[in-house]
This record gives sequence, structure tokens and C-alpha cells, in this order.
Amino acid sequence: MNIFEILGMLAAIITTTAFLPQVYKTWKTKDTKALSLTMYTAFFIGVTLWIIYGFYLNSLPMIIANIITAISALTLIGLKLKYK
Amino acid sequence: MNIFEILGMLAAIITTTAFLPQVYKTWKTKDTKALSLTMYTAFFIGVTLWIIYGFYLNSLPMIIANIITAISALTLIGLKLKYK
Repeated sequence: MNIFEILGMLAAIITTTAFLPQVYKTWKTKDTKALSLTMYTAFFIGVTLWIIYGFYLNSLPMIIANIITAISALTLIGLKLKYK
Repeated sequence: MNIFEILGMLAAIITTTAFLPQVYKTWKTKDTKALSLTMYTAFFIGVTLWIIYGFYLNSLPMIIANIITAISALTLIGLKLKYK
């Protein structure tokens, strides 16, 4: 694994981790008023396509990161629909 | 451009577009209460690393998408700090 693959892995870890504070905050406060449902729905569709593209590039960071991001987006969609 | 590169471009367009409804909603309502500053800060750092990794992979969809996502994330950080 070279320096760029390490940066790719780091990118995967950070953008994956990035959604967790939002999931935690939304889960704890049940406040979804300012969240855009359109954003998270489009985001879920988009990261699903990134997963497919990641398989094509044989890029493990892309595949893993986007799968976890897809789960986070789905969770936020669920919370938005539950607490709207 | 093969089918997977088209899907990659589509992924780029959708995940890039995905942030715009959130930017528009936040800009219009000035309501940032439910938004996680930690998420958007971490997200900005993460997509910056994806841009570097995208250059390494010579992946134009990754580079373009993540640059625009970085701008969206920065805009939301600015709005969050302005209207907190």
C-alpha cells in the first residue's frame, strides 16, 4: 500500500466517520427540521452508484466507504421520516 | 467511455447535486440547528483527501465531484457558523 492508497483509506475513514456525528445528533435530539430529505435520498442513490464504480476500479476504499455512507444516509432518511 | 465510467459520472453528478438542496434549504431558512458542524468539517477534510486519491487514480468523476462537494460542505460550514 503506497502513500496515495493510505490517503484513499484515510479519506474513506473520515468521510465515513463524518456522517456519524449527524446520525448521533439526529438520533439523540430527534430534531430533523433543518435536514433536507432530498439531500439524503439523492445521496443514497449517488453513493450506491459510487459502490458500483468502486468495484469497476477495484478500489477497496471506495467500496467500503460508500457502503457505510449508504447505511448512514438510510438511517438519516429513516429518522427524518419518523420525526418529521 | 464505458458503462462503468458513465455510472461513475452519474454518481459524481448525483452526490454533487445531493448537497445543493441542503445548501438551498439552509440558505433560505437560515435554520442550522439540526445540522452537525462536526459532520461538515470532517466531510470537508475527507473529500479533500478523496480529491488527492482521485488524481492518483486518474479518475475525473472523483476529482470533479469531490471538488464541488468540498465547496458545498464549506458553504454549509459558513452558514452554520453565521446562523448558529
